[in-house]
Amino acid sequence: MSKLYIARGACSFGAHVAVRELGLDIEIVKVTLRDPASPIFAVNPLGRVPTLQLDDGSVITENSAILPYLADLKPGTSLFAPAGSVERAQIQSWLGYISSEIHVGAFRTINRPERYHPDPEAHTLVRERGAVQLKAGLTHIEAHLATRKWLVGERFTIADAYFGLFVGWLARLGPEFADYPALNAYREAYRARPAVQAALAFEQG
Amino acid sequence: MSKLYIARGACSFGAHVAVRELGLDIEIVKVTLRDPASPIFAVNPLGRVPTLQLDDGSVITENSAILPYLADLKPGTSLFAPAGSVERAQIQSWLGYISSEIHVGAFRTINRPERYHPDPEAHTLVRERGAVQLKAGLTHIEAHLATRKWLVGERFTIADAYFGLFVGWLARLGPEFADYPALNAYREAYRARPAVQAALAFEQG
Repeated sequence: MSKLYIARGACSFGAHVAVRELGLDIEIVKVTLRDPASPIFAVNPLGRVPTLQLDDGSVITENSAILPYLADLKPGTSLFAPAGSVERAQIQSWLGYISSEIHVGAFRTINRPERYHPDPEAHTLVRERGAVQLKAGLTHIEAHLATRKWLVGERFTIADAYFGLFVGWLARLGPEFADYPALNAYREAYRARPAVQAALAFEQG
Repeated sequence: MSKLYIARGACSFGAHVAVRELGLDIEIVKVTLRDPASPIFAVNPLGRVPTLQLDDGSVITENSAILPYLADLKPGTSLFAPAGSVERAQIQSWLGYISSEIHVGAFRTINRPERYHPDPEAHTLVRERGAVQLKAGLTHIEAHLATRKWLVGERFTIADAYFGLFVGWLARLGPEFADYPALNAYREAYRARPAVQAALAFEQG
């Protein structure tokens, strides 16, 4: 059986949700991160999640590749769109934007300031710059969601399975990130999905 | 006719190369960046390139979405792989890794330190942290390329059309980035391609 390696509360949550939304027969394996004894290193030398290991031993990494691969295991569902379609490109575009600009370009600056400045005393200023980047991205997405419930095509897609986890992360950052009405409604709609609830219960168990 | 908006020397170079490799009938439109008068803002409010505008007015952004969309306009070429295949997921994975970890996670720290610390006096230290991240990523890719000429499937794909531009950027960073034999051979193979030469000539013209 194929295995999806995840870590509690990590950016692997979107792929985990997608497995449940699609009803795929894939084992979810919970591992620890930044722990040399973690079994993730035997599968992915970079020690990152999500990592998808297929039956034949092939390994697929990166959310923007794993989520489309999972959806393509069941062609024709509402979670993705056919190869060659503009809708598929738009879904792939959101996966790319969220991964590069929201996760790495903004959340990482806030969560890992040591990657940007060696002096701990500078980290408050680094985090503030990350918050500026994050707000710019959120303002862009808030405007997009003002007239629609989900990111693409008036339905829940793998782009939402992924983006929903980052909207969840905003709650950790405090009240300055509370004033996005469309994002707040989006978070509620995301959390109401049975697949999201099942994934949360599994990760916290 | 569809239009691909690019800027000279920017990360849009990979999509530009892909249009030429695929022989697509798409107009390449060169714009300036960070210039309020640039025509890019009429197409993409974020003012970023590459941006692909289709005949019907639809707009597609993000390299990790534009490159697959371009390749899917000519299904069956060697530049990509069929939906559902592991090879396609691996190509998409490299697009994601290079976009998020190499471009945003490393080059941006070096090229835009002001996004990570407000004080210009801190920028040398910020850039040094970016160089550490970049070397970690390059070491990972150097090991991968030690036994193969191209990133996936023993042939030039859209992952290479994209990654080749960043290997080109290394030359700007000075001698500390010169000691990657596999990457140096990769750069030569990339530059030797007629599509790369034509794209370079167009951008510099």
